[in-house]
Amino acid sequence: MCQLLGMNCNVPTDICFSFSGFQARGGATDVHSDGWGIAFFEGRGTRVFLDPQPSASSPVAELVSRYPIRSMNVIAHIRKATQGTVALENTHPFMRELWGRYWIFAHNGNLLDFQPTLDGSFMPVGNTDSERAFCWLLQEFRRRFGEVMPSVDALFAALHELTLAIAGHGEFNFLLSNGDCLFAHASTRLSYIVRQAPFAEAHLKDQDLTVDFREVTGARDRVAVIATLPLTDNEQWTTMPAGTLWRFIDGAPAGQQATRPGPPRN
Amino acid sequence: MCQLLGMNCNVPTDICFSFSGFQARGGATDVHSDGWGIAFFEGRGTRVFLDPQPSASSPVAELVSRYPIRSMNVIAHIRKATQGTVALENTHPFMRELWGRYWIFAHNGNLLDFQPTLDGSFMPVGNTDSERAFCWLLQEFRRRFGEVMPSVDALFAALHELTLAIAGHGEFNFLLSNGDCLFAHASTRLSYIVRQAPFAEAHLKDQDLTVDFREVTGARDRVAVIATLPLTDNEQWTTMPAGTLWRFIDGAPAGQQATRPGPPRN
Repeated sequence: MCQLLGMNCNVPTDICFSFSGFQARGGATDVHSDGWGIAFFEGRGTRVFLDPQPSASSPVAELVSRYPIRSMNVIAHIRKATQGTVALENTHPFMRELWGRYWIFAHNGNLLDFQPTLDGSFMPVGNTDSERAFCWLLQEFRRRFGEVMPSVDALFAALHELTLAIAGHGEFNFLLSNGDCLFAHASTRLSYIVRQAPFAEAHLKDQDLTVDFREVTGARDRVAVIATLPLTDNEQWTTMPAGTLWRFIDGAPAGQQATRPGPPRN
Repeated sequence: MCQLLGMNCNVPTDICFSFSGFQARGGATDVHSDGWGIAFFEGRGTRVFLDPQPSASSPVAELVSRYPIRSMNVIAHIRKATQGTVALENTHPFMRELWGRYWIFAHNGNLLDFQPTLDGSFMPVGNTDSERAFCWLLQEFRRRFGEVMPSVDALFAALHELTLAIAGHGEFNFLLSNGDCLFAHASTRLSYIVRQAPFAEAHLKDQDLTVDFREVTGARDRVAVIATLPLTDNEQWTTMPAGTLWRFIDGAPAGQQATRPGPPRN
């Protein structure tokens, strides 16, 4: 499979520390060596860095881990190919524009027999199940809401319905953002942590690297980091229950919906 | 204004040499210091590197000038803002998807009173005349050709008509590619060179840097480089007449159309 990393904050924050640990999983401490990518929102703009090389040895990943890009919403992905060849066009995260906003999407999982009807408004460039799901999500958003972006509440409700429809096809952990907030679906496996005052030290699992957040944060800063598996070994991460869709705003969870039917009753 | 750089080749080629000279114009040897960007097609995928910082001092530009990404179609831009603030969302080149292909666009010029009706299928994220023109071009492509990408001849003919309509609003030098070929419009100022066997040495204007293409090319390689102003001082560049739309395929010009009416007659 793949691994996901997301960040949602209340002030523009760099992700260099978390990315350093995540990057190591792409071919060094773990097997996800079929490419990687990271997208940063900066205002309405986005920067997407992609590399079909393993992140552990990618010069672009090296730049990203050292060059502090401050962002309020970040989505990163390291790939272990399931569907689709190892190629740039199959490297996550994917980007499209809808309602004059960029949308960024990354997926960890495997969807079987998911061949929705696409009307041409958003078409996959590569051949992954992931990009197909992303295109269908945006198509359905537009079909429901027309030409004006709705409230984040309305978006979240629609995303919940659409996620239910896709999740029936298999494992569908994903991160999605339009720069205003970050949606996260724990289909099988996703964890998060919220860092806020009082800040402390954090130590990476995948590299012997420690940061003292007291030295690099302001009193009101709040940062949520979401990852397939916890990135640090001395902090308390929250496991998101399988079958939950979350939204993160201003560095904290702000709503949750179940995406798995309860146990059968009679 | 801004400066454009494009490359179209018959084999995947790196642009490190040309980009080094171009990069210096973004704040070192010239005044284009309101951001820069470069997009590489690799197969159907694209990599877009953007930085609202001057290219002459950008760590991302430093990476791009040293990391050989091999591509058959490249579009780069350094910006001197005319319309739109200095911000990431206004940094060229712009990217959209149409017909399951990525499209990349960069513009040098200034369009006045260009406020086309946009139907929502492609909407600007920033506030430049350039992104507005790009969105309108793609919308009109889709309106004409429906859901399947037409032949490159049909595209070129449509682009010619659409360019005529936009060019009436002002200076409209642009580069556009879907990865198959590169379209270039010389509204006022654009030059190109085709490098092919027998290869020779080239020396940059903007940096004291020489490359001997005999050492880095194969006998059948052919590379067209298109730039606002020639990048080397010991080669013969061709000035593209003002009011001409070109297409480049496999490293050479392959068609040209006038976009300026002839002198008035009576």
